[in-house]
Amino acid sequence: MPQRIVTLLTDYGWNDYYVGAIKGVILEANPEAQIVDVSHGVAAYDVLDAAFTLAQTYKYFPANTVHMVVVDPGVGTQRRPIVARGDKHYFLAPDNGVLSFVYAEAEMLSVYEITSTHYFKQPVSHTFHGRDIFAACAGWLSKGVDIEKFGGQIEEYVKITVPKAQKTGDKQWKGMVLKIDRFSSVITNISAADCPELFADPTPAFKVTINGKAVSKMCKTYAEGAKGEIFAILGSSGYLELSANKAGAAQGLDARRGTEIVLDIT
Amino acid sequence: MPQRIVTLLTDYGWNDYYVGAIKGVILEANPEAQIVDVSHGVAAYDVLDAAFTLAQTYKYFPANTVHMVVVDPGVGTQRRPIVARGDKHYFLAPDNGVLSFVYAEAEMLSVYEITSTHYFKQPVSHTFHGRDIFAACAGWLSKGVDIEKFGGQIEEYVKITVPKAQKTGDKQWKGMVLKIDRFSSVITNISAADCPELFADPTPAFKVTINGKAVSKMCKTYAEGAKGEIFAILGSSGYLELSANKAGAAQGLDARRGTEIVLDIT
Amino acid sequence: MPQRIVTLLTDYGWNDYYVGAIKGVILEANPEAQIVDVSHGVAAYDVLDAAFTLAQTYKYFPANTVHMVVVDPGVGTQRRPIVARGDKHYFLAPDNGVLSFVYAEAEMLSVYEITSTHYFKQPVSHTFHGRDIFAACAGWLSKGVDIEKFGGQIEEYVKITVPKAQKTGDKQWKGMVLKIDRFSSVITNISAADCPELFADPTPAFKVTINGKAVSKMCKTYAEGAKGEIFAILGSSGYLELSANKAGAAQGLDARRGTEIVLDIT
Repeated sequence: MPQRIVTLLTDYGWNDYYVGAIKGVILEANPEAQIVDVSHGVAAYDVLDAAFTLAQTYKYFPANTVHMVVVDPGVGTQRRPIVARGDKHYFLAPDNGVLSFVYAEAEMLSVYEITSTHYFKQPVSHTFHGRDIFAACAGWLSKGVDIEKFGGQIEEYVKITVPKAQKTGDKQWKGMVLKIDRFSSVITNISAADCPELFADPTPAFKVTINGKAVSKMCKTYAEGAKGEIFAILGSSGYLELSANKAGAAQGLDARRGTEIVLDIT
Repeated sequence: MPQRIVTLLTDYGWNDYYVGAIKGVILEANPEAQIVDVSHGVAAYDVLDAAFTLAQTYKYFPANTVHMVVVDPGVGTQRRPIVARGDKHYFLAPDNGVLSFVYAEAEMLSVYEITSTHYFKQPVSHTFHGRDIFAACAGWLSKGVDIEKFGGQIEEYVKITVPKAQKTGDKQWKGMVLKIDRFSSVITNISAADCPELFADPTPAFKVTINGKAVSKMCKTYAEGAKGEIFAILGSSGYLELSANKAGAAQGLDARRGTEIVLDIT
Repeated sequence: MPQRIVTLLTDYGWNDYYVGAIKGVILEANPEAQIVDVSHGVAAYDVLDAAFTLAQTYKYFPANTVHMVVVDPGVGTQRRPIVARGDKHYFLAPDNGVLSFVYAEAEMLSVYEITSTHYFKQPVSHTFHGRDIFAACAGWLSKGVDIEKFGGQIEEYVKITVPKAQKTGDKQWKGMVLKIDRFSSVITNISAADCPELFADPTPAFKVTINGKAVSKMCKTYAEGAKGEIFAILGSSGYLELSANKAGAAQGLDARRGTEIVLDIT
């Protein structure tokens, strides 16, 4: 059994003690764990943002990686801690839907409610299960403890409705903004699979409407864009993005998470 | 001797060359060191913030972890570099009080002034001892160099006065805000040990007064709070917090580091 | 062959999926790679900021470290991906000048265009070569694949003009602000090598003029400065800095990247 990698994806931010505490608990259980920060900058309480970030990262890691995902506004309530196995990866998370993309995509999925309290860091607080439950279990899981030891398998678990683009006409799709990224690019939920013809070669005539503004140029690379111009591009996540060359598109379009967009192939 | 873990806690921020340079120096001395970022987002120059963050993290790591803590506004002056051993952990820091919580809590404490310049990265700058002294010594310490090799043991070292809550009446305590966290929760310095009756079951009638506003509801979990309501809760650090459910309490209370609070059990 | 260290320096920011994805791809190619975050907070698209940060960090790491540096506004265009060897280190970067300091300083330099697509993560996107090309090659390189396997050696590669201080009079130098750091210190491009007499002991009379303001005191340590006073200091990067004691100098001087400065030894 190879030494297991533990990735961390949380909304704990980078400046408090939360991240240090969970790393300590993992390493106390398994000093050989290889901890990898994916991000601690998920938007606070934002289960969908974490779910999307997880979907764009977990699949690149080697088999048997343990992915600990804690965005947990319901900490301490009856929401269950769960551990899942899918696509040869392990996932530890609260049962609040943060694994929804994994459920939709993963093969050979099995989900377990974590009930074996002897793996927890005692005493368990009501306010920081990331430390007392998830990190402790991540440490043990990375050490090779069998997933079935953590609790019983469950068939029902929380799924969030991941907003999907809708085909609303013969050549029309409606979608929304999933995320504004660091470069102020606007990542939409219209994927190449939703609308393959948009990304065909040659590009068809099209119009993306957002906040009353229209974008009708497609670029293959960011550098193709003229100064100040906002264009469409197939982003690295597989979704349609609205971007600008070395400049922010989100401000120009007044776009934010949830803003509606309409795509017409004309 | 197991491979030693080196944790980093600094106010260097995340965007400059400082963090990269210290990691390089550690790994040059010991390529097998396992470096763990606790945080580089301590408030700039803020020894108390670093001391508090250290107190909430170090104890979770396995024995023999090396904790390098550099918030060092006095770099280059006569303030001494020190290395300490306590609770089976190692600590490297400037002698400015940043280890004060460790001094108060650790068993089997011994403190040494670092004087063995042959462990330093030469030439030693006047402005970046994190790189030239602390990181270099962290590398060697993690490699197993005996702590006594770094210099002589000292009995006097700087302690900062960690602000403690005061009992100011039969059923009254005065305290202050220690920290505003990422979720805009207000962490106070009134601990469960200071006032166990506040956290008894059932919760007594009480009032926390801050900036002329009163908080008189206790929750066990963040999710219990009604929308927009600010409540008291036992935080994961062991201190009384004022929080809100998926919303910021600090703004609503106009609270910041140092704001006074009064607790009355009524 | 020792396990190789892979450092990461990018402008991807800390909050999106980009960093997690590149770490996954590296570890998929080489689960034993030791990944070290230098920074993901380089100013967006800012090749010079990345080049400077690299120059201040790479040399501290042990021999055979792989430094992956991705600030890549030209991703997907004809700009080439390159791998270089110099000073016993490895560098992976887009051929946009981000290695310019390395080219100027490194001994035994050789540069290769990366053309061996079988090392890439397929399919290669047009928008995220950090993941699909650089991270994949970093994984293989850290595993010990010979640098010559990645492509042919090249003799011409892009160098950016690193702004150098100019001697403009018998005792006058003109320079500019290279960077404002986390502490709001102003790092200039006048180095101790450019003007050794400024840093002589005793300090000569001098005046640094910036935005019509004059600085004429030299300190050896930050703590020497009086409250509110802005002074000159030899920074840890080897360049002249303008700083203040526990306070920001950049605001007081209205300085930003590129602001001109004039140094007169009087």
